[in-house]
Amino acid sequence: MVKKVLKFGGTSVGSIDRIKHVAEIIKKERQNENKIIVIVSAMSGKTNELLKMSTDISKEFNNRELDVLLSSGEQVTCALLTGALINLKLKARSWLNWQIPILTEGDHTNARIINTNVDRINEYLKNGVAVIPGFQGISKNGDITTIGRGGSDATAVAFAKLFNADTCEIYTDVDGIYSTDPNKIPVAKKIDKISYDEMLELSSLGAKVMQSSAVQTAMMYNVPLEVKSTFTDRKGTKIFDQSNIDYKKSVTGVAYSKDDAKITLIGVEDKPGIAANIFEPLNKAQINVDMVIQNISLDSKTTDVTFTIKRGDFIKTKKILNENNLIEYKKISHNNKVSKVSIVGAGMVSTPGVTYRMFRALADEKINILAISTSEIKLSVIINEENTLNAVKKLHTIFELD
Amino acid sequence: MVKKVLKFGGTSVGSIDRIKHVAEIIKKERQNENKIIVIVSAMSGKTNELLKMSTDISKEFNNRELDVLLSSGEQVTCALLTGALINLKLKARSWLNWQIPILTEGDHTNARIINTNVDRINEYLKNGVAVIPGFQGISKNGDITTIGRGGSDATAVAFAKLFNADTCEIYTDVDGIYSTDPNKIPVAKKIDKISYDEMLELSSLGAKVMQSSAVQTAMMYNVPLEVKSTFTDRKGTKIFDQSNIDYKKSVTGVAYSKDDAKITLIGVEDKPGIAANIFEPLNKAQINVDMVIQNISLDSKTTDVTFTIKRGDFIKTKKILNENNLIEYKKISHNNKVSKVSIVGAGMVSTPGVTYRMFRALADEKINILAISTSEIKLSVIINEENTLNAVKKLHTIFELD
Repeated sequence: MVKKVLKFGGTSVGSIDRIKHVAEIIKKERQNENKIIVIVSAMSGKTNELLKMSTDISKEFNNRELDVLLSSGEQVTCALLTGALINLKLKARSWLNWQIPILTEGDHTNARIINTNVDRINEYLKNGVAVIPGFQGISKNGDITTIGRGGSDATAVAFAKLFNADTCEIYTDVDGIYSTDPNKIPVAKKIDKISYDEMLELSSLGAKVMQSSAVQTAMMYNVPLEVKSTFTDRKGTKIFDQSNIDYKKSVTGVAYSKDDAKITLIGVEDKPGIAANIFEPLNKAQINVDMVIQNISLDSKTTDVTFTIKRGDFIKTKKILNENNLIEYKKISHNNKVSKVSIVGAGMVSTPGVTYRMFRALADEKINILAISTSEIKLSVIINEENTLNAVKKLHTIFELD
Repeated sequence: MVKKVLKFGGTSVGSIDRIKHVAEIIKKERQNENKIIVIVSAMSGKTNELLKMSTDISKEFNNRELDVLLSSGEQVTCALLTGALINLKLKARSWLNWQIPILTEGDHTNARIINTNVDRINEYLKNGVAVIPGFQGISKNGDITTIGRGGSDATAVAFAKLFNADTCEIYTDVDGIYSTDPNKIPVAKKIDKISYDEMLELSSLGAKVMQSSAVQTAMMYNVPLEVKSTFTDRKGTKIFDQSNIDYKKSVTGVAYSKDDAKITLIGVEDKPGIAANIFEPLNKAQINVDMVIQNISLDSKTTDVTFTIKRGDFIKTKKILNENNLIEYKKISHNNKVSKVSIVGAGMVSTPGVTYRMFRALADEKINILAISTSEIKLSVIINEENTLNAVKKLHTIFELD
């Protein structure tokens, strides 16, 4: 007997047939008297449909009522899946946010789960499957809250932690985490085991399998995760603490992001607060700045600041920089057709020469590196966009991931 | 300042534009610091869509989960309408079944509202509009319940009673109760005032403007009702206690039902319990028997029993009668193309000759009467279906309703 949290995403419950299929998966998991908590998303497309209705009423639709509106999506899936389980002769019931309750704090549309009452559900799990809506909770005042897009992952991790589950399985429409994008690089391989840190780097770099903040929470409380497919029987990818993984390879995966743009401010006056002056107006305009590189000031007077943004924000960003009279610089240089290619691996730190091998490989392909940024388990370079797939393939090969 | 319950049906909130329009109506009603409680249905088609999803999963979908599923429809309307009200700068909030709470008793899918907490909402009404989902509540155990199709009318009446409202206004897609079907009889007239009893007879006879049990509750607690259109500014129909109406006409309206069938059992052995033996198996098979007429036994041994049913149940009914070995009769006669035409009016009882005038009018039109049934405020006849509209027009004219 083990205690499991199973989470099914929007595509997994996207139709009546799929909901019936998910019920069959749960029936299998219920064998050996396993205790099963199920977290469900809204049916795929539903949350967007509800959102559109709200913006059709007002671009500034009230957030409290938006939460009431959006939370109905998971409620529908909860009821349908529970009905399907009962139809398979399983004991099951839906537990809505206020029935448990799932306590949250923080603003409407962006709350955080802080606690839940475990006793009644633990008692219920002895005989039945508990089906719970993801993405939502209630506030101290008894208002419905939601916890942000993709928040069902966060609900699953929070429940795995609060219920002390043996594992938290994220069922989705891909069968795990790959060494790089399998749609573009056919030699991409599914990763059997990966650390939380690597998963975080890979997801923030474009492998959108799980919501990053949910992985962070899992890491913080050491909740064992598994990402697997609802539609195949294949094993998924297990996500553990780094110490539980025996690294045979220095690099675990190669990620890339497209549609980036790079801006360099040349000859910026080098004084305290200058970075804040550059980036605060961008932040206010909700422009997401990704990599930031500032070189050491050679003359102690001026420095160069390079950063990357999404290409769609390029024109807006230039306008804001032009209007910013808190900063002085000599020149602005930009390239709005770049991409970021990253190698990720918890084994990197103990393997000498990874950095060198990456730069050499790109040089062999005559790919010019425009900027470099590193962390403990990641090495990212900015290159011209046209070279992206070439670079990814080459790195995938030389780090023995094919 | 008056306190009002306003109920908006499915077609009234059937699209985003209509929800915005309803918000404008409420804004007007909020003038003079009126205290406004709004009850909403699910958007038109929504409940059927959710029901279909449940039957696609199982023909015997669990009733507890069905209530969780169906209640989401009104939750969505609640949130959208409240957002629209806030967008018009009104103070408003949605109050869900469990937040108030709306206490019910009885079975899932068929519960009854028994109480609600009035204090918090009464406090809120001083400054804001309370928007409440119709058709639902919670049980003593904290499960979501629903109160049957059309139940939003029942919620509106229950809230008008519990909150001691001055009036309960039912906004719908017709502009009131008519003296007969305005789609078929162009001279039909809107009735300004009608008694609960007359309304009940008219609705059960085919004028499907309000759910009958909601009218019954309104009658029991003397809740003043008004049925009016969401889409025009015209006055609606007010529904009061009979004593508040000054009857100038003996007949208030002419109703008819189509698709009826008539069955007569001739020469039934006349002994106690025989009616129960005939109708119990029909009831078990969920066949709705409408009129039942049993003539006095002439020979003290046998009698004739006539009853009407919906035409769709005709074959099933004959089969059940044939298989019923608890009853004996000489012959069965039937006519599966009949209709029921009724005149309704609280003034009938004090006006001599109404019965005679009705029969004479039908005779003038050479319409044969197959069966007759009367009550205090109603007189119904069964005739051949082909004569229906002729009969309705004639009666409408001779009772001065044109």
